Amino acid sequence: MSRDHFVHGFLNPKSVAFFGANNKGGSLAAIQIMNLIKSEYSGNVYPIHPKLETIMGFKTYKTISNVPEIPDLVVIVLTAKIVPQVFKECGEKGVDKIILISGGFRELSGDRKNTLTEEINEIAGKYGIRFIGPNCLGVFNNWFEKNHSNSAFNIAIWEHLKKGNFSIASQSGTLSSHIWFDPENLDLGLSKSLSVGNEANIDIVDCLEYYKDDEETEVIGLYIEELKRGKRFLELAREITPKKPIIAIYVGGSQGGNRALQSHTGSLAGDSKIYNAVFKETGVIKTDYVQEFLDIALILSNKILPKGNRIGIITNSGGPGAMIANNAEKHGLVVPEFSESLQNELKAILPTTAGFNNPVDCTFDMNLPYFYINLPEILMKSGEVDSIFQYGVVGFQDVMNDYLQNEKIAKWAEFENPSEEQMDKLAEKLLKPTMKNSREYSVPIFYINPMSFTSPWSKRLRRNGAMLFKLWDRSVNALAKVCQYIEYKQKQE
Amino acid sequence: MSRDHFVHGFLNPKSVAFFGANNKGGSLAAIQIMNLIKSEYSGNVYPIHPKLETIMGFKTYKTISNVPEIPDLVVIVLTAKIVPQVFKECGEKGVDKIILISGGFRELSGDRKNTLTEEINEIAGKYGIRFIGPNCLGVFNNWFEKNHSNSAFNIAIWEHLKKGNFSIASQSGTLSSHIWFDPENLDLGLSKSLSVGNEANIDIVDCLEYYKDDEETEVIGLYIEELKRGKRFLELAREITPKKPIIAIYVGGSQGGNRALQSHTGSLAGDSKIYNAVFKETGVIKTDYVQEFLDIALILSNKILPKGNRIGIITNSGGPGAMIANNAEKHGLVVPEFSESLQNELKAILPTTAGFNNPVDCTFDMNLPYFYINLPEILMKSGEVDSIFQYGVVGFQDVMNDYLQNEKIAKWAEFENPSEEQMDKLAEKLLKPTMKNSREYSVPIFYINPMSFTSPWSKRLRRNGAMLFKLWDRSVNALAKVCQYIEYKQKQE
Repeated sequence: MSRDHFVHGFLNPKSVAFFGANNKGGSLAAIQIMNLIKSEYSGNVYPIHPKLETIMGFKTYKTISNVPEIPDLVVIVLTAKIVPQVFKECGEKGVDKIILISGGFRELSGDRKNTLTEEINEIAGKYGIRFIGPNCLGVFNNWFEKNHSNSAFNIAIWEHLKKGNFSIASQSGTLSSHIWFDPENLDLGLSKSLSVGNEANIDIVDCLEYYKDDEETEVIGLYIEELKRGKRFLELAREITPKKPIIAIYVGGSQGGNRALQSHTGSLAGDSKIYNAVFKETGVIKTDYVQEFLDIALILSNKILPKGNRIGIITNSGGPGAMIANNAEKHGLVVPEFSESLQNELKAILPTTAGFNNPVDCTFDMNLPYFYINLPEILMKSGEVDSIFQYGVVGFQDVMNDYLQNEKIAKWAEFENPSEEQMDKLAEKLLKPTMKNSREYSVPIFYINPMSFTSPWSKRLRRNGAMLFKLWDRSVNALAKVCQYIEYKQKQE
Repeated sequence: MSRDHFVHGFLNPKSVAFFGANNKGGSLAAIQIMNLIKSEYSGNVYPIHPKLETIMGFKTYKTISNVPEIPDLVVIVLTAKIVPQVFKECGEKGVDKIILISGGFRELSGDRKNTLTEEINEIAGKYGIRFIGPNCLGVFNNWFEKNHSNSAFNIAIWEHLKKGNFSIASQSGTLSSHIWFDPENLDLGLSKSLSVGNEANIDIVDCLEYYKDDEETEVIGLYIEELKRGKRFLELAREITPKKPIIAIYVGGSQGGNRALQSHTGSLAGDSKIYNAVFKETGVIKTDYVQEFLDIALILSNKILPKGNRIGIITNSGGPGAMIANNAEKHGLVVPEFSESLQNELKAILPTTAGFNNPVDCTFDMNLPYFYINLPEILMKSGEVDSIFQYGVVGFQDVMNDYLQNEKIAKWAEFENPSEEQMDKLAEKLLKPTMKNSREYSVPIFYINPMSFTSPWSKRLRRNGAMLFKLWDRSVNALAKVCQYIEYKQKQE
């Protein structure tokens, strides 16, 4: 049971004390408390401050000893040198979980021994304290209150994130928190995020152990600069990947990269060849790119997984069809020729100038229900493809709306635009049957609209459950890695 | 002189006649006329229509023979089978330039012979007509009227595009037009765009010949499915690349890709190995990805080119610094260690917990003028790097603004937000000196803000001339290819 694992408590505290907060904008601890408020955290909040009466509306306490209960968790954002004293006070109070945000400990020392780190480790040992950090950015649990959709235990992330099944553990705070700044990433629902920092006490392997049994985690993402417990990682990864996919970014192996790590965490990164071999052997999906990391997570989180690596392409433009096919084959996906009977089925509903073999090119001359419903359905039913890429789901109406903003055009145009409600209904009508078919046949479909992710039509498609990409390259590359994982998984069964 | 080249007339007509337009939204010819209106085209427009009196406010003519002058250009969007007759009528009128948008000619015939194509070629030959197409999407000239910033000759692109020095010739209409749908691509100024379609009469090599001498074209982008005149391409490319970079996407070499091309243009694509060799030998920058194509174009269009492949990294977060360094070295860029004197200069203005060697990690504890002005200046002046990547130019104020939208937070927060004007001034103050230094030392700087491209701070940075990316991967990969090109160019000198 994941609730028996000690990491569970860090994500589910009923009370939290904060060192280092104030009411000002530039304070990291204040930002964390503001995140708690925004995320409608229902537990008790105890800011510790020598002078202020309240912080963000919460009554403050001069020392941790004055707090009226033993807080489940303590968060510290203070200069490194006073941290040992605070650890002691926490220990005396009976606190057993600390998140140590502050930097300036191990990363300053190249020889991996630092009296300050040793000191806090000793104190922690004495009082039975487990702690995350130092030099980390906080944690996030979107399932803190399962039945309250706006609520989270969140001291890490500014944006409101959809509840999901993807959980991250990261040795970089940027990867655990700031990647969500981009609204294009918000379709990926997050379950949990753990920024582990320098791992003086708790490491990324502990997090992996926790996620292994966590029911709210079905896809795991890791950002790794160094694995201190390589053997245990190997065991765990081998055990986990047949059930839950693990996506990993490993940064190391280059000179500049290692120098960056030296200054960042003080650790020495291992040869990337060793890591690549470990990932390959254990079925861990490896990527070098943050965007690909998120794209793979999105595809895996969506739960409709392809059974193999054959893709079908539906397009209304030749170039993108060719580029998708070309790139897919380069990355080990297959773009099969269609059987004669399937081609005949397609011919029955397409214009004569269309392409009937894979890719299916509808040309500009397309009928919306055929394009969005019938063509995908025919391909899904055929059993000849495992995934579908559909290019050309552009917001034609958005373009027309824009033309009508021009007075000269509006004066003469003999067309009117449907209302917002009509457009909403249209999107639902076009998407719903395909989403259903996709689930039923277990054939994922990737939609590509070269317009902005937040354009009206894109939003409508996304609202109806479409996995949307602006261009095809990213989704093809990500699917190729997902298919490699699925192949690995099938071999384990 | 480019104005003596026959392609010039297609981009600079003083009068255009249209076949196939109406006043409805679904008509491609109507959309082209709407683009002309939106782009404030100052020439004469003559829609040809058997019944309508006016189209989009322009008086129509029943036949081309009734038009009161010989139009400089005729655009045809009609069913293939009536095109030969229209060609004849145009020839009789004295028309010598046609853009044939309609599909349904060569692409239907696998054997590359088709009576309809032969027929129009014969008619064109007889009357001395040159034509673009069939199966194309139109052309765009942002320099049609040099002194009128809103004006263009535009029958291809919906968006308003910045005037620039990048020109495209493409065998895919999507690549010549629809890639501009995405607002993230709008910092790349466009000069000209030519969609060549099936090349029955004018091919992509003609376009390249024209761009070679075109003063308004300094960077060339090509989308290639097939080169019919490989030898001439080789000659031209070899002549052009020492002066103007050429970026090319070549799609071919895979089975699915070739099948797509078969249906798209009817052509057979050659082995990608041959194309790769040709590109390498002639210094053409090759990419498989549309986004990379645009990223490379953006870097090259910006005119501040690095002198070599050494990069400096400035970051406020260790993870991104490590990822940039790692990825850069994998792609052949160099992340040099800094000299002692340079490190000492950096130490003088950075907190003690910072990283002073490359990457420079300012940590969260950063001072804005140091971060935006002094650090880049020190690196640029040092002569130790050729380009700079700066991570962490986030819109901190945008985040704070958002917190203040929460009533509970606003009630207690002891910070106020600067006004829009103050933020505008701040962005200008922080960016202007660095943009000047970048020009002066010829060291390009790439800014990375993980927030939306259209977030307030991102907009402010872009308005001040920043080359902005949401993540680092794309810009690193694109720069690596730019540096390879620069190396090629230096060898030619």
